[in-house]
Amino acid sequence: MLDDMTTHDITRPPLSPTPRTTLTRSKERGRTDRADLDAVLDAGLVCHLGVLLGGAPVVVPTIYGRAGDTLYLHGSTGAGNMRAAIGTEISLAVTHVDGVVYSRSAMHFSMNYRSAVVRGKAVLVTDEAERLAAMRLIVEHAAPGAWDRVRPPNRKEMAATMVLAVDLTEASVKVRTGGPGDDAADIAAGGVWAGVLPLRQVWGEPIGADDLEPGVAVPDDVAVRVAPDTLPVS
Amino acid sequence: MLDDMTTHDITRPPLSPTPRTTLTRSKERGRTDRADLDAVLDAGLVCHLGVLLGGAPVVVPTIYGRAGDTLYLHGSTGAGNMRAAIGTEISLAVTHVDGVVYSRSAMHFSMNYRSAVVRGKAVLVTDEAERLAAMRLIVEHAAPGAWDRVRPPNRKEMAATMVLAVDLTEASVKVRTGGPGDDAADIAAGGVWAGVLPLRQVWGEPIGADDLEPGVAVPDDVAVRVAPDTLPVS
Repeated sequence: MLDDMTTHDITRPPLSPTPRTTLTRSKERGRTDRADLDAVLDAGLVCHLGVLLGGAPVVVPTIYGRAGDTLYLHGSTGAGNMRAAIGTEISLAVTHVDGVVYSRSAMHFSMNYRSAVVRGKAVLVTDEAERLAAMRLIVEHAAPGAWDRVRPPNRKEMAATMVLAVDLTEASVKVRTGGPGDDAADIAAGGVWAGVLPLRQVWGEPIGADDLEPGVAVPDDVAVRVAPDTLPVS
Repeated sequence: MLDDMTTHDITRPPLSPTPRTTLTRSKERGRTDRADLDAVLDAGLVCHLGVLLGGAPVVVPTIYGRAGDTLYLHGSTGAGNMRAAIGTEISLAVTHVDGVVYSRSAMHFSMNYRSAVVRGKAVLVTDEAERLAAMRLIVEHAAPGAWDRVRPPNRKEMAATMVLAVDLTEASVKVRTGGPGDDAADIAAGGVWAGVLPLRQVWGEPIGADDLEPGVAVPDDVAVRVAPDTLPVS
């Protein structure tokens, strides 16, 4: 099949006991280790959140943080899509595309990828300490090591922010690696190149803000991301 | 706001007349040009599709193709998430992360990004010529120039495939570029680095399949993607 990324109605017993996330197709691509889920989530910068809005789903990108089995989202208190998520069943996905798989026949073209799909209730976090901890997780997820050297949120900023928690129990991971899976007849016919064109994300050199005063060096937490041995991002 | 990516309940008149996609926040980031939508969609490899399943949304990654105002999806006829989409209101999003925006205060950390959010009905395509044309668009979207040199889908493969069409009228685009938007007091306080750490996707060198016979060269359509002047991907 050209693309079975959508058959993500997975989940393996260690992650979820519910029938609605049981692996139904492409079983070989489902991963059963909790660590696989954490790895896919932790390597991502943005998730896609699906919320029911006016009777139909809407999918929007958003940043996130994770602590153990809990994923945190946040948004402005005025953000309609986040407000709609409160207390409702949502879904979110994180996908890394690692390459395009070129095959000898059109229907066997594919992607190499790692993806995680989560379903669960988005619970409004009201405890102020947990809210602040979640904001730290979210900022540190996007910019590891930055939180402690910048101004923390003040009361007004926190008041304008909603934080949502999603339990990661009902989740699935799929990973595809390696070359094409061509039909024997197409391989035997010969003459058509097949293989993988790898894709990766890389950081560029940091660009100081226009309003940055002279003499402020790029901090270590930023510099280390660009260091050659830390590439690629994912 | 640290993250306003979620306020994607946009859309601008040229793309959509419906109230449910009217821009409500972050107006400066909404784009009004149809070409902006096309550019974000065309630069993506994977979209995230949100489908209503058992009363709650589920978000899965999938590949796609576009022809004018129509986006095409496909899946195995046995794929539950795609089957659930048929004839229903779905949403899909494509997001490119272009960098992490480092600010002087935690709440102003952000991402530079380009994202498109589409809402609409997923219509099952039944005309065989349109189905085949859609498969070509999807393969060519993932691997431009490859279709004509590989074996086309046969009748059995097409019978096992469903193709869905989504109208792109109800869509929105948001783009964030540039440096942080710090508070004046934080800028005045000084001493904290702020700026952007750019992120981009790059192709690696093509890797021939294990079962590729000797002497089959990397085709031009693959080689051109890796050529230095065609990097980055997005």
